[in-house]
Amino acid sequence: MNLDRLSKIRIKMNQLSFDHLIVTSTDAIFYLLGEEIHPGERLLALLISQDETKLFVSALFPIDNPQYPVYYFKDEEDIIKILAKEIKPQTIIGIDKFWPSQFLLKLMKELPNHQFEIGSEAVDAIRLLKDGEEIKRMRTASEINDRIMDEIIAYIYEEAPKGNLTEIQVQKKIKTLNEGYGIYELSFTPSVSFGKNGAEPHHDCDDTVLKKGMAVVIDMGGRKKGYCSDMTRSFYYGDATDKYKEVYELVLKANMAAIKAVKPGVKLSEIDYAARQVIENGGYGEFFTHRTGHGIGINVHEFPDVSMISESTCEPGMLFSIEPGIYLLGEFGVRIEDIVLVTEEGCEVLNSVRK
Amino acid sequence: MNLDRLSKIRIKMNQLSFDHLIVTSTDAIFYLLGEEIHPGERLLALLISQDETKLFVSALFPIDNPQYPVYYFKDEEDIIKILAKEIKPQTIIGIDKFWPSQFLLKLMKELPNHQFEIGSEAVDAIRLLKDGEEIKRMRTASEINDRIMDEIIAYIYEEAPKGNLTEIQVQKKIKTLNEGYGIYELSFTPSVSFGKNGAEPHHDCDDTVLKKGMAVVIDMGGRKKGYCSDMTRSFYYGDATDKYKEVYELVLKANMAAIKAVKPGVKLSEIDYAARQVIENGGYGEFFTHRTGHGIGINVHEFPDVSMISESTCEPGMLFSIEPGIYLLGEFGVRIEDIVLVTEEGCEVLNSVRK
Repeated sequence: MNLDRLSKIRIKMNQLSFDHLIVTSTDAIFYLLGEEIHPGERLLALLISQDETKLFVSALFPIDNPQYPVYYFKDEEDIIKILAKEIKPQTIIGIDKFWPSQFLLKLMKELPNHQFEIGSEAVDAIRLLKDGEEIKRMRTASEINDRIMDEIIAYIYEEAPKGNLTEIQVQKKIKTLNEGYGIYELSFTPSVSFGKNGAEPHHDCDDTVLKKGMAVVIDMGGRKKGYCSDMTRSFYYGDATDKYKEVYELVLKANMAAIKAVKPGVKLSEIDYAARQVIENGGYGEFFTHRTGHGIGINVHEFPDVSMISESTCEPGMLFSIEPGIYLLGEFGVRIEDIVLVTEEGCEVLNSVRK
Repeated sequence: MNLDRLSKIRIKMNQLSFDHLIVTSTDAIFYLLGEEIHPGERLLALLISQDETKLFVSALFPIDNPQYPVYYFKDEEDIIKILAKEIKPQTIIGIDKFWPSQFLLKLMKELPNHQFEIGSEAVDAIRLLKDGEEIKRMRTASEINDRIMDEIIAYIYEEAPKGNLTEIQVQKKIKTLNEGYGIYELSFTPSVSFGKNGAEPHHDCDDTVLKKGMAVVIDMGGRKKGYCSDMTRSFYYGDATDKYKEVYELVLKANMAAIKAVKPGVKLSEIDYAARQVIENGGYGEFFTHRTGHGIGINVHEFPDVSMISESTCEPGMLFSIEPGIYLLGEFGVRIEDIVLVTEEGCEVLNSVRK
């Protein structure tokens, strides 16, 4: 149990007028308790009040030496009724943004005179500022991801000339390379796109074979000691066309402009704008179809977004991705993504693979 | 789009007095539309009314030739506001049980005069009765899982005598064997437990080495053509102790008693009771710490539970697991799991690996 984080969360709960906070996401509970519990569809809830912290977990997932009260329930118990009894009358309850609706709707029926609010801000506002140990782990995760990217590009240039290298094979190789660094859990299923498949920002790997004259997009990351990396590199296999070069240069310029914009006090929406403006001025605005980036840490996607509607402001210790892209349906896609750490003066880019 | 399934759901919606149904789970949408969309933390919602079916999905996940209206939204749009506009005034809305609370709470603020109910029953009640094609796929998935179980047991007996076979190695081998059958998505992370690790029903594989005199539990399944298998086998590596034999026989008897109890008209709680009674009578009741089984199909865990509080009744076409277990902390665990299909006369057991 991390008492420092919990006490910061209690201050935030006060500011938000929450009497209770129900934290239910595996990653948020890991952040607070240091326990990683994957309960499947069964309920998992950490109930935080000013005076107590109590975990509700299925008896199938016992905790070693918990430093906090734990209520172990059996499948046949009505755990929501039991949880509801711990909540003070007519209070305001902050609810984990990811809690499945089936639990929330049942709890609302049990507690008709309570006010329910999206509560994750109370955790996210603390969690987005990483401490020294977290930053160390984030650096290590990205360093390894850098090495794997170099290795996978070398692998592609070695295997592709043989004429039957598929996206799925590269995807598998990424997994194997991660395992070589002791990483068995990836941040997400690696995305490898050849040719026009790269025009789908979230392409599922298939049997497409890499041939000369195809663009390549590789988006990947691994989870090391609980913290995630995430990086994208794009390149052309063979002699790039003028159009590819133009688009690539534009995305790179957008990536660099956003990175340059990062420093304490700057809004994340301004960072999004820095990237978006470059691509719009280059005439490809409509093909940059997503936000510029996302927070990252225990989860690969964390609060806050780097988007045009993000109201968050850069503070030292924040980490997020910068990943502008241009997607030309039927042709190719280019995305260039790095993880950055906000520092006192600006930012540190955690990835160093050539762009 | 499966019109037959949608029309059955609309009849069920009428019975439940839902004016609208919001379906948001990837698997439920796959069941209805045939599209498997993994939107990450972004909203995904299928809004079903008596007169229309409309999909809301991020523009990052385009659908090929949809046979229904699709609203593609961008990251910067307030998609809940747009969704709320499609809902008729003062109606009852069934909500997907797995919808993250952040979306539900926002929608409730937009629609303060509406009634919100857990709505998944409208889909689950149809989906639990598998049709001919689904049953065929379930049989195929379990047949392959049978073969892999035979192969993995042979692998263990070949490798373990060399003296350094770990749980993680067996887990990796399970993945590799699945890939040999074209299965790249497992039903869940395979669980392999040696010795006292088997006393944790959901053990995470580690570096424990298999030695003579250790019990083994293997729980695994793969997803083939969209449908899941799931099976557990337990055995003793070396000469089993009398206690192990006693516990194993009891779990096997419970597994067989539950299978024998399955036929149309029988409540799932009675099937749970059939297994539980055997283990209780044998004196190990307190060590059977979970439900007897769970529905299975597109998801490895589907409605309904086979538990002492399940109110569902067997009907031909239902598929669920039968998996009693006994867990003796510090010693070993035994679980024996098969998938059964309810038939007109009783049931068909989809797994045939020796127990």
